[in-house]
Amino acid sequence: MSGNTFGKLFSVTTFGESHGPAIGCVIDGCPPGLALSEADIQPELDRRKPGTSRHVTQRQEADRVQILSGVYQGVTTGTPIALLIPNEDQRSKDYGNIAETFRPGHADYTYWHKYGVRDPRGGGRSSARLTAPVVGAGAIAKKWLRERFGTEFMACMRQLGDIDVPFEGWEHVHANPFFAASADAALLARMETAMDALRRAGDSIGARIDVVAKNVPVGLGQPLYDKLDADIAYAMMGINAVKGVEIGAGFAAVAQKGSEHGDELTPAGFVGNHAGGVLGGISTGQDITVSIAIKPTSSIRTPRRSIDKDGNPVAVETFGRHDPCVGIRATPIAEAMLALVLIDHALMHRAQCGDVRVETPKLAGQVP
Amino acid sequence: MSGNTFGKLFSVTTFGESHGPAIGCVIDGCPPGLALSEADIQPELDRRKPGTSRHVTQRQEADRVQILSGVYQGVTTGTPIALLIPNEDQRSKDYGNIAETFRPGHADYTYWHKYGVRDPRGGGRSSARLTAPVVGAGAIAKKWLRERFGTEFMACMRQLGDIDVPFEGWEHVHANPFFAASADAALLARMETAMDALRRAGDSIGARIDVVAKNVPVGLGQPLYDKLDADIAYAMMGINAVKGVEIGAGFAAVAQKGSEHGDELTPAGFVGNHAGGVLGGISTGQDITVSIAIKPTSSIRTPRRSIDKDGNPVAVETFGRHDPCVGIRATPIAEAMLALVLIDHALMHRAQCGDVRVETPKLAGQVP
Amino acid sequence: MSGNTFGKLFSVTTFGESHGPAIGCVIDGCPPGLALSEADIQPELDRRKPGTSRHVTQRQEADRVQILSGVYQGVTTGTPIALLIPNEDQRSKDYGNIAETFRPGHADYTYWHKYGVRDPRGGGRSSARLTAPVVGAGAIAKKWLRERFGTEFMACMRQLGDIDVPFEGWEHVHANPFFAASADAALLARMETAMDALRRAGDSIGARIDVVAKNVPVGLGQPLYDKLDADIAYAMMGINAVKGVEIGAGFAAVAQKGSEHGDELTPAGFVGNHAGGVLGGISTGQDITVSIAIKPTSSIRTPRRSIDKDGNPVAVETFGRHDPCVGIRATPIAEAMLALVLIDHALMHRAQCGDVRVETPKLAGQVP
Amino acid sequence: MSGNTFGKLFSVTTFGESHGPAIGCVIDGCPPGLALSEADIQPELDRRKPGTSRHVTQRQEADRVQILSGVYQGVTTGTPIALLIPNEDQRSKDYGNIAETFRPGHADYTYWHKYGVRDPRGGGRSSARLTAPVVGAGAIAKKWLRERFGTEFMACMRQLGDIDVPFEGWEHVHANPFFAASADAALLARMETAMDALRRAGDSIGARIDVVAKNVPVGLGQPLYDKLDADIAYAMMGINAVKGVEIGAGFAAVAQKGSEHGDELTPAGFVGNHAGGVLGGISTGQDITVSIAIKPTSSIRTPRRSIDKDGNPVAVETFGRHDPCVGIRATPIAEAMLALVLIDHALMHRAQCGDVRVETPKLAGQVP
Repeated sequence: MSGNTFGKLFSVTTFGESHGPAIGCVIDGCPPGLALSEADIQPELDRRKPGTSRHVTQRQEADRVQILSGVYQGVTTGTPIALLIPNEDQRSKDYGNIAETFRPGHADYTYWHKYGVRDPRGGGRSSARLTAPVVGAGAIAKKWLRERFGTEFMACMRQLGDIDVPFEGWEHVHANPFFAASADAALLARMETAMDALRRAGDSIGARIDVVAKNVPVGLGQPLYDKLDADIAYAMMGINAVKGVEIGAGFAAVAQKGSEHGDELTPAGFVGNHAGGVLGGISTGQDITVSIAIKPTSSIRTPRRSIDKDGNPVAVETFGRHDPCVGIRATPIAEAMLALVLIDHALMHRAQCGDVRVETPKLAGQVP
Repeated sequence: MSGNTFGKLFSVTTFGESHGPAIGCVIDGCPPGLALSEADIQPELDRRKPGTSRHVTQRQEADRVQILSGVYQGVTTGTPIALLIPNEDQRSKDYGNIAETFRPGHADYTYWHKYGVRDPRGGGRSSARLTAPVVGAGAIAKKWLRERFGTEFMACMRQLGDIDVPFEGWEHVHANPFFAASADAALLARMETAMDALRRAGDSIGARIDVVAKNVPVGLGQPLYDKLDADIAYAMMGINAVKGVEIGAGFAAVAQKGSEHGDELTPAGFVGNHAGGVLGGISTGQDITVSIAIKPTSSIRTPRRSIDKDGNPVAVETFGRHDPCVGIRATPIAEAMLALVLIDHALMHRAQCGDVRVETPKLAGQVP
Repeated sequence: MSGNTFGKLFSVTTFGESHGPAIGCVIDGCPPGLALSEADIQPELDRRKPGTSRHVTQRQEADRVQILSGVYQGVTTGTPIALLIPNEDQRSKDYGNIAETFRPGHADYTYWHKYGVRDPRGGGRSSARLTAPVVGAGAIAKKWLRERFGTEFMACMRQLGDIDVPFEGWEHVHANPFFAASADAALLARMETAMDALRRAGDSIGARIDVVAKNVPVGLGQPLYDKLDADIAYAMMGINAVKGVEIGAGFAAVAQKGSEHGDELTPAGFVGNHAGGVLGGISTGQDITVSIAIKPTSSIRTPRRSIDKDGNPVAVETFGRHDPCVGIRATPIAEAMLALVLIDHALMHRAQCGDVRVETPKLAGQVP
Repeated sequence: MSGNTFGKLFSVTTFGESHGPAIGCVIDGCPPGLALSEADIQPELDRRKPGTSRHVTQRQEADRVQILSGVYQGVTTGTPIALLIPNEDQRSKDYGNIAETFRPGHADYTYWHKYGVRDPRGGGRSSARLTAPVVGAGAIAKKWLRERFGTEFMACMRQLGDIDVPFEGWEHVHANPFFAASADAALLARMETAMDALRRAGDSIGARIDVVAKNVPVGLGQPLYDKLDADIAYAMMGINAVKGVEIGAGFAAVAQKGSEHGDELTPAGFVGNHAGGVLGGISTGQDITVSIAIKPTSSIRTPRRSIDKDGNPVAVETFGRHDPCVGIRATPIAEAMLALVLIDHALMHRAQCGDVRVETPKLAGQVP
């Protein structure tokens, strides 16, 4: 209720700040009987963790996850699963200069005005570090969905600043530091160069990320408010720095005619997927396709005008170990959020309609 | 929980289908002491109702709202406010041909697969008609926010199909049938011509709508999941036919640098509003600016390939009284949804932080 | 969230006041495919309605229920079911003298202090009349549970003031005006005499009611907070005038030893049911047994000391048509509340654990 | 939603099992600005912890609480407060014999049937040990309520098996090992003797506990379902082993007449408190008075008939370190639960009605 719990039936309640002793989450509602250990979770956290290339923050965090509860003899028991991730790199001296001032484009300003108090160390609660527990919870959701429906999640970068990144195939995503679905060496070199220049300039840049879920059962979603796409939009817009969300054709649907946009059906399945896998707020069984816009990081070395708590003008430069493009590390986060939305709706559907109908009907296959 | 309630503290639970005896909603959590009568609600419903120009559906609905409870001697009592809107035009013969088939791009398919049963009359629960109770609830939210904070809501069309509509001033919005914030006669004529052609062709088109809230208190929103922008995205994506949502700079933020995107502050206030009035999920006190993409209506006269319940190929044409561009009537709906999000967060903020801090600090003003 | 919705997955949101135009509720989450019409609901309302004997209020209310939505061709569609019950007997002149004063033992005082405004007509929202929509919703819950699990609900009076009513058999409950499970003519005559004397004296009396559910699946309930018995206690204590709730042995368990209280098991089932059908917050498959204490009505003709809104001393006598013992009409209400708790937990269990395990295992039968 | 979170606005999500690495909770919704450290919480945990006398379990647990988040420089920040309590005494060999069988009167049976899997070590999630995090959360709630309204909580034993314990004064509660509000040496000796005999016999006994909150603001509670007394009943019945709950006069109200039960008012305040501080579900400003029945522990050394997982008859004796009367340690738990209910309603009231009215009006004082 107070904004730190995600999901209704598969509920993830997170806690922690960037530079406190630990961050973590409690997952309530994971079905019993799922084989689970830290080894199922750690690889997802490793994809998100800092320091994997020179293009992301150099903060040193092993992000070792520990399961504190909810698993007995390697199997979930249906009781809450607590995940704990100790903070190792708690250096906060880099942030000393921001305790009394507000970084332009940063939550500093709003936290201060909302609460009258804030933890300035590393952005405190507003740090992107808080996506780590979510990625852990998402790993559990993914595993359950995979075992039950064969659902798979994938994400890739489609735009880095003003560089468009064409989609060539999912197999390329982990072969480059940008999670680009491309093997175009010239393009990747351009991205490297752009990032290096940006880092030297002490500036940052935005990114567009595509996220897809395959093998989604038909029938997930609620008709009016907890529409599947509404909940996806909520999940994605809730990721730090996201400013836009599209489902299927997205903003391109504005210029489409009804005779073009509406995906026709044949006995072999849907002919196209402008809908992005959701009609009337309910999944069609096709791929769920989502695109998100991520703004440039607000913590940059470039000096900027701001004010202090008393309203006096100051110049703010943020030193420290920040991502010049937070979008680079966003792919596992976006996948995790999508998985959390889907498992919640899968459980809700089961509550309402029983197990039987959570099966993809034959005709729901998408014509390639 | 089951998807027909919007909001946590100002909760709107809707009911009804397009061609049943009535639609309506129950609003739970409206603060006591607000002067309220049907006269506060009806004008908002009138803005949304069908038949106001030749460019929208010709269905005849007076959309007369009745308050059944929660108001005593003209003042809200703090108990649930039930709104009832009888359905007058229940002709459903126009829809007879769709009971056994699925319109491409329509919820027909997913409702059937989810529930195993559906009410085909006029789209049943998935009809855009179900936005009427929300507009009614939004009118109450708007009134409370206006009286307490001076908050105002406005929306306008910014794109109709491939026609861009520049923003010239809010005063133009109600002077044309498209809710365009423009007085450009040539442009408006082009829009008329395009819509007429579309209607003759039996096709439909999408639209982009901008929605703004002014005089929003600083500090509304939760830090991690119930971020103000996440809840706005949820609300907007939940409106029928919406496929994309942007806050502030939206997808344009992708190509921006951090030194350009982050809105600087001076003692006089923010210098720009790329953030769209939200930082770290919490309102800054600036205008909340939102943009949404609305897809073309799926109910069109143009014949399209589809299947019936048994998977056999059929051709589907939808006769009846449909909007060729649902975006035209979407402005009051988008305003209502934004108002519902804001009142919910205003009440939540009051729960957490008390009355005192829900005041816009002096420096939160936006430099023009 | 704001206290007018009961249940999480089978959610009943009520609205209305005693003397407004109508009362009713919206039921969200009823599974699709249940055959349903007003004829399934009206008989339960008829059991609760006033005027059935001289021992209850003589207010004239037909309590005719109308289904406004959620049912198509006689079957639930999975969308919200709205029930409307018009108020017919809106005479409120009888209550004129209480608008400015507080009846001892009545919600007048607290509503006034909470909201700063109240609807005094017939107790407004605090009237026991508001149990009617709940009984309607409960009828739907009962039908679903009966069809799925064979669950049956029954309730009877066990104490009327200081008269103990022994349990002789459920078949007697509807053969007397007190819902006593007894055919003891002398006892029933004593009850009649006591009620007649009370009515003449302008006073009221309390009652104890027992409620039972039979054929409950094993496994319903949550381990820590939404324990089945906790939710039953919440439901029962929420009925107007209830001051105490017991599950199974209840307060008698205090004086029991562990070797006496804990129900032993044999291959044929449980040997006894001190637990009342709940262990560790989860149903055992045995009968759920509940007992509730209902206080005497606070609206009595006997003059009592009180104060007015300004704190001045006044004498309060309540004329009008009140129940001298609200417990008499409480049996269908208590059954309905128990049914609403059970269906909510049945759906929740299905979400968590799937359909399969919601079956009573062979050994869960109770040895007679 | 899945039963491990207590409270809506001051939400406590617990995790952990009796013999896992740690137990704890995440508190979401604590208002910012409250001075808080472990020293505010530990004393409450110390009152609950095992091993304080020979009459409670001899398990060795320091129950050292650590605050992991939500506090910065000694003050709450409005973000989630995570409490961690490591399990020190994880000996589980004592429980080996129960993994395949069901203790009569214990959650073993229902967990197994619900989940198909259970953690048998020390009762796993159903262990009374899980009340420790709640007591920690309750300490925070108490502090906020005390600072804001002067609210105080107290509880005492009123019945131990068949021994009635008269109330002589709160000052005696901590001067004896039973939390009895009595200084009667003969009575206390009888209680000691009874407990010693019980322990030798390998049996257990029940208890009745009274819980009181003083200086409660008027106006807390919702009118229909989240009545203050309904939520108190839910909270109390959710404590391990509780089988009955009374508010105010409780079951004694059944035999009372309306002219006796309804508490009269004079300009000086209420004349009596049969209501237990709640009318119509909303607090009156008087003391909240609650009484609960606690059943005898089911883990006893006395051999009892039961079955194993396969339905075969077995004899069950539970060795290990169990409380012969769990009621003895229940007083701090009951206080904590009551505090959690009150803070939740205080925040909810603030959301709905603003800060202003959460003040006890002059006339709400209770005449002694």
